Amino acid sequence: MADAPDRDVAEERRDYYERISPLGLAPLWETLHALVPKQPATPLLPVKWDYDNQIREKLLDAGRLISAEEAERRVLILENPAMRGQASITQSLYAGLQLILPGEKAPPHRHSQSALRFVIEGSGAHTTVDGDRAIMQPGDFVITPSRHWHEHGNETDVPMVWLDGLDIPLVRFLDAGFAQGADRPVQVEQRSAGDNFNRFGRNLAPVDWQARTPSSPLFSYPYVHSRTVLETMALNDPIDPCHGHKLRYVNPATGGWPMPTIGAFIQLLPKGFESLPYRGTDSTVFVVVEGEGRSVVGDTLFQWKPRDIFVLPSWTPVTHRSESEAVLFSFSDRPVQQALGLWREQRGDEERDWI
Amino acid sequence: MADAPDRDVAEERRDYYERISPLGLAPLWETLHALVPKQPATPLLPVKWDYDNQIREKLLDAGRLISAEEAERRVLILENPAMRGQASITQSLYAGLQLILPGEKAPPHRHSQSALRFVIEGSGAHTTVDGDRAIMQPGDFVITPSRHWHEHGNETDVPMVWLDGLDIPLVRFLDAGFAQGADRPVQVEQRSAGDNFNRFGRNLAPVDWQARTPSSPLFSYPYVHSRTVLETMALNDPIDPCHGHKLRYVNPATGGWPMPTIGAFIQLLPKGFESLPYRGTDSTVFVVVEGEGRSVVGDTLFQWKPRDIFVLPSWTPVTHRSESEAVLFSFSDRPVQQALGLWREQRGDEERDWI
Amino acid sequence: MADAPDRDVAEERRDYYERISPLGLAPLWETLHALVPKQPATPLLPVKWDYDNQIREKLLDAGRLISAEEAERRVLILENPAMRGQASITQSLYAGLQLILPGEKAPPHRHSQSALRFVIEGSGAHTTVDGDRAIMQPGDFVITPSRHWHEHGNETDVPMVWLDGLDIPLVRFLDAGFAQGADRPVQVEQRSAGDNFNRFGRNLAPVDWQARTPSSPLFSYPYVHSRTVLETMALNDPIDPCHGHKLRYVNPATGGWPMPTIGAFIQLLPKGFESLPYRGTDSTVFVVVEGEGRSVVGDTLFQWKPRDIFVLPSWTPVTHRSESEAVLFSFSDRPVQQALGLWREQRGDEERDWI
Amino acid sequence: MADAPDRDVAEERRDYYERISPLGLAPLWETLHALVPKQPATPLLPVKWDYDNQIREKLLDAGRLISAEEAERRVLILENPAMRGQASITQSLYAGLQLILPGEKAPPHRHSQSALRFVIEGSGAHTTVDGDRAIMQPGDFVITPSRHWHEHGNETDVPMVWLDGLDIPLVRFLDAGFAQGADRPVQVEQRSAGDNFNRFGRNLAPVDWQARTPSSPLFSYPYVHSRTVLETMALNDPIDPCHGHKLRYVNPATGGWPMPTIGAFIQLLPKGFESLPYRGTDSTVFVVVEGEGRSVVGDTLFQWKPRDIFVLPSWTPVTHRSESEAVLFSFSDRPVQQALGLWREQRGDEERDWI
Repeated sequence: MADAPDRDVAEERRDYYERISPLGLAPLWETLHALVPKQPATPLLPVKWDYDNQIREKLLDAGRLISAEEAERRVLILENPAMRGQASITQSLYAGLQLILPGEKAPPHRHSQSALRFVIEGSGAHTTVDGDRAIMQPGDFVITPSRHWHEHGNETDVPMVWLDGLDIPLVRFLDAGFAQGADRPVQVEQRSAGDNFNRFGRNLAPVDWQARTPSSPLFSYPYVHSRTVLETMALNDPIDPCHGHKLRYVNPATGGWPMPTIGAFIQLLPKGFESLPYRGTDSTVFVVVEGEGRSVVGDTLFQWKPRDIFVLPSWTPVTHRSESEAVLFSFSDRPVQQALGLWREQRGDEERDWI
Repeated sequence: MADAPDRDVAEERRDYYERISPLGLAPLWETLHALVPKQPATPLLPVKWDYDNQIREKLLDAGRLISAEEAERRVLILENPAMRGQASITQSLYAGLQLILPGEKAPPHRHSQSALRFVIEGSGAHTTVDGDRAIMQPGDFVITPSRHWHEHGNETDVPMVWLDGLDIPLVRFLDAGFAQGADRPVQVEQRSAGDNFNRFGRNLAPVDWQARTPSSPLFSYPYVHSRTVLETMALNDPIDPCHGHKLRYVNPATGGWPMPTIGAFIQLLPKGFESLPYRGTDSTVFVVVEGEGRSVVGDTLFQWKPRDIFVLPSWTPVTHRSESEAVLFSFSDRPVQQALGLWREQRGDEERDWI
Repeated sequence: MADAPDRDVAEERRDYYERISPLGLAPLWETLHALVPKQPATPLLPVKWDYDNQIREKLLDAGRLISAEEAERRVLILENPAMRGQASITQSLYAGLQLILPGEKAPPHRHSQSALRFVIEGSGAHTTVDGDRAIMQPGDFVITPSRHWHEHGNETDVPMVWLDGLDIPLVRFLDAGFAQGADRPVQVEQRSAGDNFNRFGRNLAPVDWQARTPSSPLFSYPYVHSRTVLETMALNDPIDPCHGHKLRYVNPATGGWPMPTIGAFIQLLPKGFESLPYRGTDSTVFVVVEGEGRSVVGDTLFQWKPRDIFVLPSWTPVTHRSESEAVLFSFSDRPVQQALGLWREQRGDEERDWI
Repeated sequence: MADAPDRDVAEERRDYYERISPLGLAPLWETLHALVPKQPATPLLPVKWDYDNQIREKLLDAGRLISAEEAERRVLILENPAMRGQASITQSLYAGLQLILPGEKAPPHRHSQSALRFVIEGSGAHTTVDGDRAIMQPGDFVITPSRHWHEHGNETDVPMVWLDGLDIPLVRFLDAGFAQGADRPVQVEQRSAGDNFNRFGRNLAPVDWQARTPSSPLFSYPYVHSRTVLETMALNDPIDPCHGHKLRYVNPATGGWPMPTIGAFIQLLPKGFESLPYRGTDSTVFVVVEGEGRSVVGDTLFQWKPRDIFVLPSWTPVTHRSESEAVLFSFSDRPVQQALGLWREQRGDEERDWI
């Protein structure tokens, strides 16, 4: 890009820019380095929501203001302060907290957007995907992938809350979303609860089964299993200095991500763990499952406890410190970035050519 | 989504929305159907640029206002009228017209963004990628993929212009871009011109060669070949009622797209061809290579001639009619949409479940 | 191929064949249709082994004749009667029955050949693969993939027997086998029993883990899980008229086969099930896990009961009939045939172009 | 494996082996190390055929003894001396020399077996695959992949000879071959000669084309191109000390091998080149295209000149020395071995763990 030109040249150029603007033209050389920055220059802000003290009461208010069926989905969207009005928690992802009260149903619909559910409180409501039902418990990771009919119901006697994570901003950016609504009766449940897990979650598959979509045929990943695996790692493995003990959820039909647009992770930080700094190009949403601690995100310190939610913007260094044994769930658009050859990460103070 | 509630309820809800807004919360149920639309609702506008009568003169003016080296890249950006100030011709793609005058060099740089060049006028300038040089002729399709050092030079005695297509908005949306600049001498050319084509363009590969990136190792696709293939198809194949005779450019190392984020196409419309309507979810930029005709994009009629450029927004029906034999080049983000399972197309009046 | 030529021509040709034979030449036209048959013309014979009445006693005799350590592997090879002396149960596969007595060890080695173990009797011995230990129970499917160090030990007080299935004939045919022997102490067990299953068998993976081989990182598939999944299918699914309820074992890192050269299956036949005929190009070895019944393989009737083993040659029709609820394990070279585009199957009396 | 046991034990064991043999049982421990050898122990012998002085005359004799149509394919099979009567030049591959005289046709058929043709002498005959025709010149590499209808015709006035390479032994070993014969008229040629090359050989593809088989849609790789690429490499690249300048033929739809069972290569040895030793697990057939030289295969010296054919057995070291600039074509089952994770190579005197 040019050094600052002298005054006359600068004026001549400004005149020129004004003349070409009505033609839909703009000079690249004035913005090249902003358009092609040396490293990611995210507009996002780090932000934390305190579920117990800030959100829960408001969510229950919503339960009085509108029914699940009237709302179709009774959700409070969590908006990044840098992107208000855009239903975005990061540039590519949406997050919200969904409340479903005893006896309520969230009616069936389907859409191009991929969705994850991470259970925050309550136990025993269900999600049904294409006729298969899964029962939901705190810490369970449940997906309702792109194109699949899905609905929820709460037949218990307590409110149920989960975090929704969707790729709404990404699908909007790509202008590629379709949806079909609820104008028909609830889908017929064809199989017993647990069928989906047995069918696809146990390292066997029906001999002639073939994947029809890039998403996981397994749609429920119970916390009871995740917790067991974290404990096994803690017992047997050296600890990762950036992550503690960290796992990714896997699509058993491919070994890859559960959905092509959203990756999800769960990690255990032993009591007193202090991580090295880490950053990646995938802006990430964290949910605290167990334990207390604090994370420094860029220059911002977040104290956290169970059910808190916070955002780590792209290429912003984070360090974690746990005051008790802690478990963090997280999700990001890393599968998109990896599919396109764009994802990068930096561990500790390693240096290399990030391009 | 809810029917309109009665007045009191509506007011109560507005109060509630105001109370939760400072917490970074927003009610999904007021915007659900806009966030998850029944079909793509693109903000883009159809638009056409007349190269000969509107752009060329302005581009030559730029040649007087700033040098290629000062500008790093002397380019006029083509902005979609719905996205002024964002350097976007579609939501995910950037396009610009680059001028390089006799004797000029555009200095070496590299970046995460993938770029294509489609030669508009002039003959004989060169693009060098990682030490391999390709000579450029009108109609040639040349890529400078993500991460590769690249530069241009014009050693001929006439101005040279090409269209640049990049994924700048996509990489910005994903917050994943890195760049390295020109603060070092021009890369050493290690091989003779034509080496790259011979090495990778002839259905043979060095026995131990392995792809290190998802992009094509072949970076120049000469028009003389594209034209020959189009003629062979016209001779031997039934015509496609939507496309005429249409080809996609291929990465010979994978059979897939030349770059993971941008797909490119070239099609021949015989004289007097009138297409059936077609639409896809990938907003597309067209460049007229040969011939005259007109395209109806949604409700907008574009008359076109060689070197005109026009934009087809997502899920907007297009029909083409050629007044003479015509060749159209085009590019879009279809590889991204296909990698994520999102791409859809509609041919003629076929109807199906687009989700 | 030629019709029978007249006598003089025939004699002239025979003379010619004799003249060219010393040059290493032979006329294709005399054998073309045998070399390129209209359909598979297997040399294999159907065969059954009665474990309880024929094999078990002989195997225990071997336990007195040679120690596990002296034998390196104390195994009786099951040879197809059409291929005696070649250690082949099918053309591409080897099978044997391995005995390990209380207190014995089968010392560590590794080789290019891939191996499966299917537990026939005894409970509680272990297989260790690259330092991970799995405890073995009847019906468990355990793999010791190509290249991995593996060993076995029986710390229980009863003899333990399993079926070994290897691709020895295939690797010999391809002339591509390497092996490393036992001249070093037993590998160090690095992790607790169950670690391998927890790490890879529960739809999660360590975040930075990457497969280094095409084989499954999970090496034990317990029968307790297989049985559960078969029961779920029996409860929820329509029965397959050829297979009953049939599953394939899955590599959780890819969704594909556990090993690149051997596929394995388990199927449940409800009491009184009579199958439609079925055939495939992959010659298959069956092991009866539970129940009694009979199978007709080509023209041969096999009555079977638990622990019997029988062979289904390529493209030979089979029907099964169960007298009680039955479970059959089986394995074949189907992954090889599918990787090469060669595998074909015929269900019932369907007819199509098998090429 | 056991040390030699004492006499009584040995006798007791022999008695035991005789008792179990009628049951189809054999003791693994007597043969384990032969079945699982430390490194490949090929039965193949190195062998060379002198086309000009030994084969050509015999082939022309065959032209008098039987017509192409009567023979279906008039071919002399080249048999490895270690595998006489098995139509095998290596364990997995077949090779033969096919003669087609002026005015003759080899009638259409198709089969599961994959075939390559490498043109030895004559110019202008054709191969037709699924209605596409290719004209054949010396040095051209032509494939007639598994399942595709194919036929040949010689409309020139000179005899035409090519080498056929097929996977007949492999398909026989897998018991997976089907064939369909010539009992119908010659396939309709649907497209002009050159259409196939233009359609798939120029780094473009019809926009909606999708591969239906794992084999290359391009079936002719002209020598004029191969030669050009070899010359470019010789001009621009450092020479490989084992291979000179070596290329593999590529399937443009995948970047992989032209057929899933046979890989093919072409290499240029500059005048006076002396290679380092090299060996791989894929037994390989070489054809001399141009030049003279000698190769040492294990302990055997082969002097060679154009049209000579020689065999390099698995894991046998080879060195080449060229007396003039030379070009060698070769083929092997390397794609099979790589698909199964079995292929290994040793360059020069490098040492590592071959398992």
